[in-house]
Amino acid sequence: MLDLHPMATRGFTTAEFAQRTEAAQKIMVRQGLDAMLLTTEPEVRYFTGFDTIFWLSPTRPWFVVIPAKGAPIAVIPEIGGPSMSLTWITDIRTWLAPQPEDDGISLLTETLRELMPGGGILGLPMGHETHVRMPAADLAKLQAGLEGVALADATEVVRSLRMVKSEAEIAKIARMCSIASAAFEDLPSYIKAGDSERQAFAKFKVDLLQKGADDVPYLVGSSGPGGFENVINRPSDRVIAEGDMLLLDTGALFDGYSCDFDRNFAFGHASDAAKSAYDLAWLATEAGLQAARPGLTTTELWAAMAQVLEEGGCSGHQIGRMGHGLGMQVTEWPSLMPGDDTVIQAGMVLTLEPGLAFGGGKMMLHEENIVIREDGAELLTRRAARELPIIT
Amino acid sequence: MLDLHPMATRGFTTAEFAQRTEAAQKIMVRQGLDAMLLTTEPEVRYFTGFDTIFWLSPTRPWFVVIPAKGAPIAVIPEIGGPSMSLTWITDIRTWLAPQPEDDGISLLTETLRELMPGGGILGLPMGHETHVRMPAADLAKLQAGLEGVALADATEVVRSLRMVKSEAEIAKIARMCSIASAAFEDLPSYIKAGDSERQAFAKFKVDLLQKGADDVPYLVGSSGPGGFENVINRPSDRVIAEGDMLLLDTGALFDGYSCDFDRNFAFGHASDAAKSAYDLAWLATEAGLQAARPGLTTTELWAAMAQVLEEGGCSGHQIGRMGHGLGMQVTEWPSLMPGDDTVIQAGMVLTLEPGLAFGGGKMMLHEENIVIREDGAELLTRRAARELPIIT
Repeated sequence: MLDLHPMATRGFTTAEFAQRTEAAQKIMVRQGLDAMLLTTEPEVRYFTGFDTIFWLSPTRPWFVVIPAKGAPIAVIPEIGGPSMSLTWITDIRTWLAPQPEDDGISLLTETLRELMPGGGILGLPMGHETHVRMPAADLAKLQAGLEGVALADATEVVRSLRMVKSEAEIAKIARMCSIASAAFEDLPSYIKAGDSERQAFAKFKVDLLQKGADDVPYLVGSSGPGGFENVINRPSDRVIAEGDMLLLDTGALFDGYSCDFDRNFAFGHASDAAKSAYDLAWLATEAGLQAARPGLTTTELWAAMAQVLEEGGCSGHQIGRMGHGLGMQVTEWPSLMPGDDTVIQAGMVLTLEPGLAFGGGKMMLHEENIVIREDGAELLTRRAARELPIIT
Repeated sequence: MLDLHPMATRGFTTAEFAQRTEAAQKIMVRQGLDAMLLTTEPEVRYFTGFDTIFWLSPTRPWFVVIPAKGAPIAVIPEIGGPSMSLTWITDIRTWLAPQPEDDGISLLTETLRELMPGGGILGLPMGHETHVRMPAADLAKLQAGLEGVALADATEVVRSLRMVKSEAEIAKIARMCSIASAAFEDLPSYIKAGDSERQAFAKFKVDLLQKGADDVPYLVGSSGPGGFENVINRPSDRVIAEGDMLLLDTGALFDGYSCDFDRNFAFGHASDAAKSAYDLAWLATEAGLQAARPGLTTTELWAAMAQVLEEGGCSGHQIGRMGHGLGMQVTEWPSLMPGDDTVIQAGMVLTLEPGLAFGGGKMMLHEENIVIREDGAELLTRRAARELPIIT
């Protein structure tokens, strides 16, 4: 098969993991952190390369500790030992989980005590877009066992690192965006009025897999006569009819990195209201593409798109922002919204996602994925059609 | 297409959600809880029916409060309002998220204060297999705003309810097990030596979707000459060769309910060691099937399988248990393991998952899914072949 998608190798070099760790340690030193505890999938994968879908099981906690100096330490259930030993991590400490009465807590306590024998400050991401993936009672137990160790919020350490992607990360996202662009372009050949939403979504998912996506964890959308009111739905048994609008929005994965964009389609014909809404969202996206560059803030990039919508007589939507970071997760820091004020840097991968309400509660959303380069935005998705595609 | 899979309607009746809520409230009263706060996807879906893949985005927290009396209250980002309003929930309170400085916390505080004006005890699942899906700093903020309200662990409320499935839940799991059984039975017709693991897994995933799975979030496995050493891997580019063993283990979804079972295959030929290991795991599963019944404990059910393995000269594996609950998640409470001691009840859906090491570090795992009936185990999966299937 001719492969038209950008090259991307699988995995990362050990050098890249070492660089990520050192970059984290620099910030940790600035913030006075003696160690950092990570409990969530993207953070563990970012620093170790440990990539398993086993996180879907809520049974076992997984811990990675970043010391102030040296390589990360994995404190994980024994079932993950063989997989973790394939990564660059050499200090792997395991316990036979599940073990509700002590599910790794004494092993983790011991590890942290070893790093901070006289006490110290332990960083833990506790801020926006984070959570602690372990039983709250176990976190309390851990704190009780770490006398002399204070917890401090380490959100900024992971946030600032993960927001700016390496070329290897960008290549994976670019490849995924290319695969999904091709699937969206081919969609009119295999989705027809008369399909149920469920059938249409399944066909699209299968096409994504056959075109090279590893997985399609995120696929939402909606259909309805002349438009739709709801944009985060799973598909229903509703049958798509002539005169309907259809939105599909996918976060599919290549080697653990996601795209996140949508496309709109009309069936048979479209109202002038829908065509105008499409046009306005397209132009707002275009304004975002032109404006995005290093040095601008996320709030300013939001404003560039919002201005087009306002001038077009619309006032946005209830999604609360017009784009966000993209990478290992389908949404990441930062948010394109008033008050976010993150300074955009080269290497950030962002979605541009302006949307508006029209025709009495209907929604129109556009979305493209870009990487910020020194001289502005580089599109990773193939641009949405200039005019609303009509499937006949 | 002739549909050979068990019937299962989509969704649940309002009566079922009301029953779940009332059952929770009975336990809450016994435990002295004035309200319960839920933050995780399965818990929110269990009590409301709110079903969206939007949880994959870490950006926004979602809250459901179960009062001591009356229907649940949803405190959620505005983007989820239209979807939540399609459920039985009528008290839906929204804020425009993301809003890092106050991401629903004041709205949630107000809601809880309204329910507990003079203070009280707020249940929050904090025990094994739970986590709190909101920023830890926001949980601290919530607690600070709730003077006079003490937190108490509510794990047992959701654990005891979710462990015992309704007939409607069982029907969904049964349908998913039937679809995956059919996909496993057809697998030898479309997976061949010469496929890479990645190609083989993709074909299986596509077949699951085409046979009626809504989604295949969980698919792990491994291949290797004469066996494999690692059972939670994503597929690699390794090419499957004659003489290899292949394990696939899937948690695919029908209407939000999962199967979780695996099948083993050999290519071309299999060693006597592999055949013996397969036989022993099959017999251990059989012992589990015969033993499982209401009144037995999970520890005793584990022992019934462990005894067969021991008598066969093997001592289990590093997975730490030999099965678990199954339902909305690919693994749920309880665990079949020493010390779990949960009394098995009719309506529990369990996996039987005995495994063993053989041939120097290789693994053999079998898995079936059952529902406990008054008179014993009812298979939901179609039983694994009596002898190791060899794909030629």
